[in-house]
Amino acid sequence: MKYLWKGSYMDQEDIRIDLHDRGYQFGDGIYEVTHVYNGTLFALDEHIDRLINSAAFIEMNLRHTREEIAELFRELAAVNQIDNGYVYVQVTRGDGLLRNHGFLSYEEQQPVFSGFAQSSVRSEEKMIHGADAITVEDRRSLMCNVKSLNLLPNCLAKHAAQKKGVSKALMVRDGIVTEEKSGNIFIVKDGVVLTHPDGGKILPGITKKLILNILHTRHIPVWEKEFSEEEMLHADEVMVTDTNSEIVPIIKINDQIIGSGKRGEITQDIQIAYKALIEETCGKL
Amino acid sequence: MKYLWKGSYMDQEDIRIDLHDRGYQFGDGIYEVTHVYNGTLFALDEHIDRLINSAAFIEMNLRHTREEIAELFRELAAVNQIDNGYVYVQVTRGDGLLRNHGFLSYEEQQPVFSGFAQSSVRSEEKMIHGADAITVEDRRSLMCNVKSLNLLPNCLAKHAAQKKGVSKALMVRDGIVTEEKSGNIFIVKDGVVLTHPDGGKILPGITKKLILNILHTRHIPVWEKEFSEEEMLHADEVMVTDTNSEIVPIIKINDQIIGSGKRGEITQDIQIAYKALIEETCGKL
Repeated sequence: MKYLWKGSYMDQEDIRIDLHDRGYQFGDGIYEVTHVYNGTLFALDEHIDRLINSAAFIEMNLRHTREEIAELFRELAAVNQIDNGYVYVQVTRGDGLLRNHGFLSYEEQQPVFSGFAQSSVRSEEKMIHGADAITVEDRRSLMCNVKSLNLLPNCLAKHAAQKKGVSKALMVRDGIVTEEKSGNIFIVKDGVVLTHPDGGKILPGITKKLILNILHTRHIPVWEKEFSEEEMLHADEVMVTDTNSEIVPIIKINDQIIGSGKRGEITQDIQIAYKALIEETCGKL
Repeated sequence: MKYLWKGSYMDQEDIRIDLHDRGYQFGDGIYEVTHVYNGTLFALDEHIDRLINSAAFIEMNLRHTREEIAELFRELAAVNQIDNGYVYVQVTRGDGLLRNHGFLSYEEQQPVFSGFAQSSVRSEEKMIHGADAITVEDRRSLMCNVKSLNLLPNCLAKHAAQKKGVSKALMVRDGIVTEEKSGNIFIVKDGVVLTHPDGGKILPGITKKLILNILHTRHIPVWEKEFSEEEMLHADEVMVTDTNSEIVPIIKINDQIIGSGKRGEITQDIQIAYKALIEETCGKL
């Protein structure tokens, strides 16, 4: 695999990360992951928008234009000959200075870009048969709208799921369902779709945004509105959405069957429309 | 400077941090900083206790005994000939695997130790004359009892203080004063000392703990009890305590003078006792 490191593409052993890189000592950085279908990066513009928003929120100087950032993603996919898979790019606030919580002014910052790309196979298996989940306490920061490298609570949530032998960890803060450890959550009750509103408590998902567009276009009622763990457990359908897995029906939570215990109709509708959206820009899947 | 890297001491350019080190992509790691006075590490046992507690909380396998960890701190100070200064040691959960939120079982984990040591001069200037502060919203995770590498909100708090030209950022969550961006907060009102109770919302400070002992010994009334921003602004004395700066009186917050605008009596009492405590183990300062 060829890695992106400070503007060049190289083998892992040629990378020299400074021990004082702010990513390594503070998690002071941001990232994006884009899905590649048939050699084309899906929703790249939206991911770059979000990277720029994350940077603005934490006053990080990216020192790259939109097009230069897009080129990093595309180059990573190209040099690694990714036909289907994903591209990961992260940016930390800088390196080369002794550890200090305080950081340089916006004008002085020299961000550190790194990244990699990985092939993977798009499988509809999980999209059809669904996944099991547990609920965990959401102990994350109130800056979840920033896609930052501060991911320890997310890692612990995933580990808790692994220990229970399930794949998804649904996070609950003060009784309200916020987000899966790396995806947004939608529920369906009596034909109405609910998902947590954007803000500091969740990441504004690209897949979430595209699904909202799909629902609006198809006149399926959808509210960005808080819902409780109880409401989720008694929903007709629950789904988790993210860049990597797209739309996965959740059929069991904490050993309790959700709805019919099978993928629901609205979930399937969304999956079909989302696949069509991918095919519009990336060709037949 | 010689750095600690995976059990050896070396120059910075010889360190090879894996891009997939969990510290670099998730902030999945913990750390401690100990103060060195006259070549002796102060309160090293307490710092190692906390490192072990942090590791336990996040299910991280340190694969080192207490004594082996102590030796890393002492060696870093020795190889860098630190007479007065500090030693920083961090541990990440591992490297060498493709990025994945989920992590290896406790038994399989191979932690990555790194660190450095730096000389600094103990100045009583700030302890006597105090510092200015601002209040900022506490947007940190609810795992602040873990001294982890997820420090982005702390960095932003410090930056906010820097932009206002002050040194301290006092964090407030839902109206309650929690912690300074890298220190605990004590207030004094009518002879009674208050500080936020331990738990997920603050770091259990070593300096805080030692000060509580001092206050108990001297029969000065102290409560570990939540207090509001309003109570802090109208306190007789406010102080920030941490390993590096010890006890710093806060004389102005958001441009408002606190108490007499000078170091208070109880603050001074604590400083004298804390200095005596250091001198007991590290010799005359």
